[in-house]
Amino acid sequence: MESFLDELNQLRNLDFDTYRKDFLLTTDKTREDIKATIKMAQLLRTLYRNNISTRFFQTGLAISIFKDKSTRTRFSFASAANLLGLTLNEFDETKTQVSHGETLRETSNMISFLSEVIGIRHDKFIGQGHQYMKTVGEALDEGFAEGVLGHRPAIVNLQCDVDHPTQTLTDILHLKRYCGGRLEDLKGKKIAMTWAYSPSYGKPLSVPQGIITLMSRFGMDVHLAHPEGYDLMDDTMDKAKQYAEESGGSFTQSNSMEAAFEDADVVYPKSWAPYSVMEEKTKLLEEENESGLEELEQQCLERNKQHIDWECNREMMDLTRDGDALYMHCLPADISGVSCEHGEVTEEVFEQARINTYYEARYKPYIIAAMIIGARFRNPISLLDYLYRKRNRRAGSFES
Amino acid sequence: MESFLDELNQLRNLDFDTYRKDFLLTTDKTREDIKATIKMAQLLRTLYRNNISTRFFQTGLAISIFKDKSTRTRFSFASAANLLGLTLNEFDETKTQVSHGETLRETSNMISFLSEVIGIRHDKFIGQGHQYMKTVGEALDEGFAEGVLGHRPAIVNLQCDVDHPTQTLTDILHLKRYCGGRLEDLKGKKIAMTWAYSPSYGKPLSVPQGIITLMSRFGMDVHLAHPEGYDLMDDTMDKAKQYAEESGGSFTQSNSMEAAFEDADVVYPKSWAPYSVMEEKTKLLEEENESGLEELEQQCLERNKQHIDWECNREMMDLTRDGDALYMHCLPADISGVSCEHGEVTEEVFEQARINTYYEARYKPYIIAAMIIGARFRNPISLLDYLYRKRNRRAGSFES
Amino acid sequence: MESFLDELNQLRNLDFDTYRKDFLLTTDKTREDIKATIKMAQLLRTLYRNNISTRFFQTGLAISIFKDKSTRTRFSFASAANLLGLTLNEFDETKTQVSHGETLRETSNMISFLSEVIGIRHDKFIGQGHQYMKTVGEALDEGFAEGVLGHRPAIVNLQCDVDHPTQTLTDILHLKRYCGGRLEDLKGKKIAMTWAYSPSYGKPLSVPQGIITLMSRFGMDVHLAHPEGYDLMDDTMDKAKQYAEESGGSFTQSNSMEAAFEDADVVYPKSWAPYSVMEEKTKLLEEENESGLEELEQQCLERNKQHIDWECNREMMDLTRDGDALYMHCLPADISGVSCEHGEVTEEVFEQARINTYYEARYKPYIIAAMIIGARFRNPISLLDYLYRKRNRRAGSFES
Repeated sequence: MESFLDELNQLRNLDFDTYRKDFLLTTDKTREDIKATIKMAQLLRTLYRNNISTRFFQTGLAISIFKDKSTRTRFSFASAANLLGLTLNEFDETKTQVSHGETLRETSNMISFLSEVIGIRHDKFIGQGHQYMKTVGEALDEGFAEGVLGHRPAIVNLQCDVDHPTQTLTDILHLKRYCGGRLEDLKGKKIAMTWAYSPSYGKPLSVPQGIITLMSRFGMDVHLAHPEGYDLMDDTMDKAKQYAEESGGSFTQSNSMEAAFEDADVVYPKSWAPYSVMEEKTKLLEEENESGLEELEQQCLERNKQHIDWECNREMMDLTRDGDALYMHCLPADISGVSCEHGEVTEEVFEQARINTYYEARYKPYIIAAMIIGARFRNPISLLDYLYRKRNRRAGSFES
Repeated sequence: MESFLDELNQLRNLDFDTYRKDFLLTTDKTREDIKATIKMAQLLRTLYRNNISTRFFQTGLAISIFKDKSTRTRFSFASAANLLGLTLNEFDETKTQVSHGETLRETSNMISFLSEVIGIRHDKFIGQGHQYMKTVGEALDEGFAEGVLGHRPAIVNLQCDVDHPTQTLTDILHLKRYCGGRLEDLKGKKIAMTWAYSPSYGKPLSVPQGIITLMSRFGMDVHLAHPEGYDLMDDTMDKAKQYAEESGGSFTQSNSMEAAFEDADVVYPKSWAPYSVMEEKTKLLEEENESGLEELEQQCLERNKQHIDWECNREMMDLTRDGDALYMHCLPADISGVSCEHGEVTEEVFEQARINTYYEARYKPYIIAAMIIGARFRNPISLLDYLYRKRNRRAGSFES
Repeated sequence: MESFLDELNQLRNLDFDTYRKDFLLTTDKTREDIKATIKMAQLLRTLYRNNISTRFFQTGLAISIFKDKSTRTRFSFASAANLLGLTLNEFDETKTQVSHGETLRETSNMISFLSEVIGIRHDKFIGQGHQYMKTVGEALDEGFAEGVLGHRPAIVNLQCDVDHPTQTLTDILHLKRYCGGRLEDLKGKKIAMTWAYSPSYGKPLSVPQGIITLMSRFGMDVHLAHPEGYDLMDDTMDKAKQYAEESGGSFTQSNSMEAAFEDADVVYPKSWAPYSVMEEKTKLLEEENESGLEELEQQCLERNKQHIDWECNREMMDLTRDGDALYMHCLPADISGVSCEHGEVTEEVFEQARINTYYEARYKPYIIAAMIIGARFRNPISLLDYLYRKRNRRAGSFES
């Protein structure tokens, strides 16, 4: 706790501008915005760990809209809301009149009268998730401008087709601690963001896209490797190149897992679908073409099988720096012999890294909470300062 | 905020008696009860808009039971509970032992040990929704009398087969602002509560029934228009007549949308099912007569189609006072060319009125919260006064 | 309220050790632990009934995992969480990536970052429910030891295959009041824990097992009666014998409902499945043997029918002490002529006892809350003392 005020001063020195802005893509944010968000997450965690209440709100709703399954992000959003004193309300389209033909513009306002934040996961359809969030945002802008809403709730992207910022900021906070404690320590470190085999298809591209665009901004040597045809969205690769140039890092793309792992400090092997398949899938879903979808799935699974050797195993890990790179994964991983016959990673490698993947995951509630207070308060620094000085106990006593 | 204490004094001058009484039908309430509820809703909204905490409760549950889909009312109830510091718990029969044969009497007590309010939507079956709420109420009365419950939770009708008071009180608050700011300003204003075509069947009668029984009490000239055979429940029409006489307003029933719109200050065009069809549907549902239900739906949709010209369009609006009546709808509206081929209202008319319908909807959380504090506290006035003077911030600071 | 401090002193005199320990089985707990839990439940109830806030927590999550239907326990857990200021989050496997192959070990940590308690119902499969809870506990132990979790959330058993401690502690608190106010008053009282007919099969054994192991520890004369073949788990019957010897009570097992009811002070007639059937069912479920399951159900229902005379009716009640034994049931009861043709109890007997069964149920939220504070706070006594002295109002005023 001694260092709390020092850390707060570091936050004061950052020139960030997150107030009244949604957190949709890290590429929309400045490096200072990102640094400030990470710093606020750490400060919130310090308060929590010292049993100091972080109720920024006495009342208020946090709405979540999940258009795909989720464990970590669902509970992280619930935890973040609770940490700040907000009450979660999950918007479930099957229980509402959206199935009666209500428009998104209208619904966005109807769920927002007393809401502070709307968290959205919409990651299954290429070209749709990010657009959906922007449409909600425009509806809220209109509602606020017209006085329908007394304030403008913030939107937090809980994973879209383009980016997964709550995951990648969690990842960079984990990396920061691992590499020495400062974001500067990431400079010159090599991260291998690689495809890995999985007996499933259609996994979103948002994690690899988010990783290459974020880590390249902080001076890392980013090596993206995948089998031919498993490209990401062009725009994210262009951004990664540009950021690497600006930051003094590098961005390499190859079709060799080995080349990526070679001397890597960090490896992030993970399955995803080829961009073209995701586009095709989106089209077929829109057409409700069931047989087409089944055929596509079979084709895609067959195609994946040709790359069954893209597995993170001991031999691959031995290629990394001192054979001891940090293994990262957003979880759940497909573990060979555990959750499937052949998967992204062997049981041996995963088991060694397992607790580290938990460490990685644990920051997410604080990252989300930091995104919320950054967007909802003009001066979150003075509020953090106030909570620190007030020292209201979160649980009954320090004995908990 | 300057006017808060003035408004509070107006509330003091009302002779209302809502303590320990459920809010099931507006016809059960006196005009003073209704005025007090509206006034409390406004006071709560003023506190909220000024970032003053309205936590009437430190802990306590708000239970909701939805037997039909809902967006606005679901979120409004969640918002109202949260505004007062209550925690929402949705009672979902599929997750509970009700499917194991538990009786309503027993269940009502089992969910109420630490509950302050039970909100119920039960609007699909003629003759059942209101009765269901009364049965729950009787079970709670018994539980409280026998000491099973430490206090008697209030019941709030979130739409039944007879009335939709959280909607109509929201509507009258909207009307009050629109007409000049005082309930007295409603006197002599003409409201057209009309049927409108929709390619669906089985919509509840509670909104038109609620509107004609409420607005007639406050001196409006209420014109109810619908195609032949689309009558409402007799009792509600009788009450509307009686209230109109008492208030100096008027109640007219016709089969002409044009006559209703003629010189109207306010129009409320909305689809509903004929009473007789709702009765038939209820019977078939009880018999689980699937083929009968399908046949009824087809018949009813065919019948509706004969009245496809009952659409709120520019020509119809031109008949209203200065061609500029206030368009009202409880939402979602069936908009021609948007949510269906032919619907209740044209896109042009709806789009012009759209923001106004959002204004209309935004009062509902405060109306519900007012119903709760009116029923749960003997002296809500002194508590509102206390909250105002204490000025605890709801969100961290006035900057939010 | 005068007696609050006296009762608190009684709690001070108990040598209990519940801190950082899960509440899985009453047989894991000492008699002092059980007494302390009951006492804390009563103290919490006294505070609540006197409108004193019992927010032990400003923020924090309570997670529930229900693998079987529930009304009472579900709402009791929700109520307990709310009473202490915790926010409920129901873990629903269908919405999460558990269906994507996530392991229980991993999931347990992922849902626990900001959680204080995890309540679990897992009662359908013999040999699995208790084991599941222990597995979750081990995962949390590891997460806490490794620093993944800042504290170790407590686990509360909301019914497993072996025991149902939140029910049986609720029952003993009810019995204590009924028998004279002190636990000592249970000594020498006869309780008939008997099987009863129900037209369903596969009901858990946890209630009878929990009752015989708990009541035998407090000196009651426990008579377990069931048709031949409807045995409970050996271990629970062995424990009941041993406890009875230690406490000066007795444990009798017979195949005669009449013998059990004879001069009984308390009767608890309730259906359950034979242990062997539950074992067979568990095996078939694991094999996904649908036809085998159907056959087993038919066989079991046929077998049950041979014992249709095991009904708690007036004649049976007349056998009890003064024909006036206390009727207990964990609810919902299968009532002959009400919820089924022939069931566990006649309508007449149930109707007379009905309000008493509600009294029985109402303690459960406080029992669960007591389990939570016992496990999460090193010194719950000083915190209860603090809340009592502070007298923060729970609801706005004493008028509620």
